[in-house]
Amino acid sequence: MSNRSLNNARERFNGLLAQSIERHAKDSPLKEAISYVLLAPESKRLRPLVIYAAGKSFNISRELLDAAACALEMIHCYSLVHDDLPAMDDDDLRRGRLSCHKKFGEATAILVGDALQSMAFVELSQQHLNPIIQNKMINVLSQASGPLGLAGGQALDLASCKNKTSQEQVSKIHQGKTASLFIAALCMAACTKNCDDYMTEIGVHMGLAFQLQDDILENIKTSEHLGKPNDSDKRNNKPSHVALVGMSAAKDLLDSYYDETARLIRSNFYYPEYMLQMLDMIDKRNIIT
Amino acid sequence: MSNRSLNNARERFNGLLAQSIERHAKDSPLKEAISYVLLAPESKRLRPLVIYAAGKSFNISRELLDAAACALEMIHCYSLVHDDLPAMDDDDLRRGRLSCHKKFGEATAILVGDALQSMAFVELSQQHLNPIIQNKMINVLSQASGPLGLAGGQALDLASCKNKTSQEQVSKIHQGKTASLFIAALCMAACTKNCDDYMTEIGVHMGLAFQLQDDILENIKTSEHLGKPNDSDKRNNKPSHVALVGMSAAKDLLDSYYDETARLIRSNFYYPEYMLQMLDMIDKRNIIT
Repeated sequence: MSNRSLNNARERFNGLLAQSIERHAKDSPLKEAISYVLLAPESKRLRPLVIYAAGKSFNISRELLDAAACALEMIHCYSLVHDDLPAMDDDDLRRGRLSCHKKFGEATAILVGDALQSMAFVELSQQHLNPIIQNKMINVLSQASGPLGLAGGQALDLASCKNKTSQEQVSKIHQGKTASLFIAALCMAACTKNCDDYMTEIGVHMGLAFQLQDDILENIKTSEHLGKPNDSDKRNNKPSHVALVGMSAAKDLLDSYYDETARLIRSNFYYPEYMLQMLDMIDKRNIIT
Repeated sequence: MSNRSLNNARERFNGLLAQSIERHAKDSPLKEAISYVLLAPESKRLRPLVIYAAGKSFNISRELLDAAACALEMIHCYSLVHDDLPAMDDDDLRRGRLSCHKKFGEATAILVGDALQSMAFVELSQQHLNPIIQNKMINVLSQASGPLGLAGGQALDLASCKNKTSQEQVSKIHQGKTASLFIAALCMAACTKNCDDYMTEIGVHMGLAFQLQDDILENIKTSEHLGKPNDSDKRNNKPSHVALVGMSAAKDLLDSYYDETARLIRSNFYYPEYMLQMLDMIDKRNIIT
């Protein structure tokens, strides 16, 4: 996928998010803060792009996946806002700007996260697909966000900071925190064609690869640019494969994740090239998204 | 409705919530905290009882409304957990016990609220009704929770603490913070019979009556038992009709809300007696729920 077509896809998607804010939050006291978070200029829109790539690989028109893509990005953004809070990771910056609570205060940031989660389900319940498919999408996304998905993963992550963590536990944390929404992206796209077998497996591998690459990139950035461990990780003592097994073994593990994801993509999509392009894009990125 | 049948209904409902936790949060690191919040012994289950009463008044079997009742209570409980946080109302006690963040820490309380909201939509998307009705329920509840409902009302409330607030603004705050979930209760029950006209209006009046009565009860409790303003209200300088117009005029306003709610119930339900009993129960309560 060329940079130009990626940027076009992002621009179109940003327009959809802006419209959604107008529809669902126009007269809300939270509108400004919701817009600040959801329309942040540096957002990569990776998860929505995965939905659209999966859609192309299944030959599903992108319009059928617009609500799912918006809803997924809303859930992702809410999780970033809550993760940044002082009681959680306590990060002052996000995508090069003040994090939501530094800009608008903690109470507003909590409510913005809450409202974004609600908006995701407003989006999904107001699309005009077959209602059976809509329900399935809602079920996929709510499960991915809940106590066994995103929220559960973040809880495990916070608990792990206090304890010694095994490689297996690190994978479990990343599966909840990161892979859940990749799984949701693939399963929401697939359920429009009723072909969701193996999507969870692909999502798990893709999410684990993404998270491991994040850790590796952070580590490289740290030693090359800062000459000291990343401040947020240090403060929070976050577990990672890099810390557990060292950089070289972590890179080998990353390669094996990518290879397995590519293999699964090739065997399970009608037109795997779009998903493979997406995987390649994730593989080649050098900015933490 | 006798106390005995009320207690039976609550006990049955508590069983449903416990089952839901087993289904959706069994292996979650948040299970203990979710159970603590959702199965708190002193919970009145008022909003679920309103759903069931509306169901009876429409001649809808309660089993068809179980998922809606569970989902609504999950949203209510998540909002209490987040409202109690130090950055919000900063309350250490809830229903006579430590609030969630005092018991489990702030980070866990934020995640418990987030997870409960997700669980509400898992519940609604997994029931076995007509999928069109399921979608409608999801749409009703997500809108009621979002930037123009619950979250928006709480944002207005927090902003109002710093400003002088008019009576109209107080009503707007209470409509978002409190009436939204009463509206959701009635509209979710009604959409199973496609008779949701006027439900919003009834929900608004019922919610405003409930909130105003809360304020009056708090004020009476304050002067009779404490001899000083309620601590949480004082600290947060919360706007209320009682503070704005005085106790006597607030009681008159409360009567007018109840009368109008009763009138609307009589004109819009097949069997209004069940909803009238519920209204009477709310009217006669003397504990803030």
